[in-house]
Formats: sequence, C-alpha cells, structure tokens
Amino acid sequence: MSDLLKKHIERFIEINEEDFSTIIRYFRKIEVKKKENLLIEGKICHDNYFVVKGCLRMFFINDKGVEQTIQFAIENWWLAEYVSFETHQPSQFYIQAVEKSEILAISYQAQEEMLLQFPRMERYFRLIHQRAHAASQSRIKSLYGFSREEMYYHFCRRYPEFVQRVPQYLLASFLGFTPEYLSEIRSKRIP
Amino acid sequence: MSDLLKKHIERFIEINEEDFSTIIRYFRKIEVKKKENLLIEGKICHDNYFVVKGCLRMFFINDKGVEQTIQFAIENWWLAEYVSFETHQPSQFYIQAVEKSEILAISYQAQEEMLLQFPRMERYFRLIHQRAHAASQSRIKSLYGFSREEMYYHFCRRYPEFVQRVPQYLLASFLGFTPEYLSEIRSKRIP
Repeated sequence: MSDLLKKHIERFIEINEEDFSTIIRYFRKIEVKKKENLLIEGKICHDNYFVVKGCLRMFFINDKGVEQTIQFAIENWWLAEYVSFETHQPSQFYIQAVEKSEILAISYQAQEEMLLQFPRMERYFRLIHQRAHAASQSRIKSLYGFSREEMYYHFCRRYPEFVQRVPQYLLASFLGFTPEYLSEIRSKRIP
Repeated sequence: MSDLLKKHIERFIEINEEDFSTIIRYFRKIEVKKKENLLIEGKICHDNYFVVKGCLRMFFINDKGVEQTIQFAIENWWLAEYVSFETHQPSQFYIQAVEKSEILAISYQAQEEMLLQFPRMERYFRLIHQRAHAASQSRIKSLYGFSREEMYYHFCRRYPEFVQRVPQYLLASFLGFTPEYLSEIRSKRIP
C-alpha cells in the first residue's frame, strides 16, 4: 500500500528505503467504503489524504440543498480542505469516497513532526502545492471562460480516466449542470 | 525595497541577515508603470513575482475579446502563471500592473538555485503555495455556490482593502459581471 507513495515522492525528490520506512510511520492506513465520509462540513480537517486506491471527492451543500462537487482525487493525488487543515477552523466542505478506497492519512501534527525530522520533504510538498495552485489557476479560468459544454469537452480531453470512472451524476455536479443536461451533451457526440 | 520580503519570510521561517543578503541577490528589482505588462499570453512565464508596492492582476482575453481578471496581488503577495513557470509552456494569461508597482522578480532558474543553496526556503514556498491552494478551494466554492451579488458582498468582507483600491471596472471583471451591474449592486447599499 505504501509503495505508491514512495514512488510518488521519488518523482520529486530522492528518498532512501531507510528514511521512507520512518516517514511512512507518520501515516495511518484507512479503508473507506463507497459513499463513506472522511470529513463533514463544520468539523476540523485534521488529515491530509493521499489516495492509494480508489477515488475521493470534495463537495459542499449549496443553498438549494444540492451537493456541489468541486474536486476529485484518484490514485497519487492528495486531498484535504487546506484552510481547515492549516487554521484548524471548521471545514466548509465534505470529503467522501466515490468508490471503495485505500487512503494514507497524515495528521497536521504528524506532518509537521515529519517535516521537522525530514526537511527535504518540504520540497515534495512545495511541488505538490505549487502544481495544485497551478491547476487551480487553469480551473478558475475554465469556470469563467468556458460555456458548460466547453467545460465538459475540456474535462474529457484533460482527464479521460475520470469520465470513464466517475458516476455521471457526480461528473454533472462537478461541471455544474444537471445529469439530464450531461446526457444531452453526451448524446450529441454519438455519430 | 527588500525589507518587506525579509519580514514576509520571517512570518514563516527564521532567517538571519547574512542568509537573507545572499537570498536577495537571486532577485531582480523591477518597477512597472500602470497598465504595463509583465507577462503576455503565449509567452513563457519565467518569473515568480513578489509585490513590494502596488498591485498586479492576472487576466485572460475571453472568446468575446473581453479581459477577464482572475487574480489580484497587492503588497506581500506572490503571483506567477504557475503552469507556465514550472513547465516552461506558453502562458494562458497576462500579468499587468494595476498601479505603478515595485516588484521583486525571481526567475525559475534562480529560484531553483536559491532553494538548492537554502533548502529551508522550501518551507517558506510550501506554506505560500499551501495557502494559495487553500484560497483557491474557497474561491472555486464561491464561483459555484454564490450568486453574483453574494460574491460581491463576500469579497467586500474578505478583502476590503481591494474594494477601496482597485478600479471598479477591474473589480467587476474579477467578479464576472459588467461595471453597470456592479454600480447597481453598490447603489443598493446606500441607505
């Protein structure tokens, strides 16, 4: 289960077996069932989650009582509600398993201790957050600049693995439209 | 000019005078006039910008030929088009001075060399990007979840200094509505 994290870290920094065996002790292995919540709105997000297997999503419940998905995370992706994680204020979001998933969780406290013991890991997390920050800039552009139909095609091109994998009603929620509208767009593509 | 950066770094990590005097040599001081571009769409974003004085904005030109502002940066804020900065691919965005501004710029190459010489600075940049990532999550929520009027009030509460400072047509562009609509909302608040 921890091999995937080691390989992911090695994409960014060098890490030997001995150091990794200490680093991994800061993590807890969690198995979650489909639709199980790892975080609910109003609670503090104590953990940073690395997806080993499966898929998580982050969502909030809007004024109309509808779940609005804002982010997915599949294998090799990190997910947390970072405002809550850093400030220890109540979370604005839910984090839920889309599928049965295997997760490595590290608490804020454990992460800080691990970074104190292995300052080289700061570089790993710096690059993870820099990429996430970069992805957010593109994401915000697409939320302003694309029509809903364009957003769907953009998403299909960029993340084809999601479109195959994520239930259609969740994909519709993420793209900000109804499942019916999604079906309509998809049917247009059939030759 | 560099004092502000030193103080900003000290909010996150300890740094002595001697180390900072070496770190600051990796930066270039830039003065930009109002409406001067630091980056244009299609060019590579070579630099990461720290605002010492003034205000920058990042925008793209949408299908209708309209400038759509997605981000502002005032004193103590970092700004770059991080996809282009990291991958050296052409930028999707423009970065322009809203006011006459004083900037500290560090190139990708210089930043990498500086981080090699001062690995402790990885923590500083990790925390900067973690916060920016956190702010993006809230931002994406507001883009999905708020009406345009709510977005305006949310923004006024969270960033009152901007609302005083940024020209109204740019604020309207950032919030995704016309200057006329912004005037209409503002006039409602007059008792």
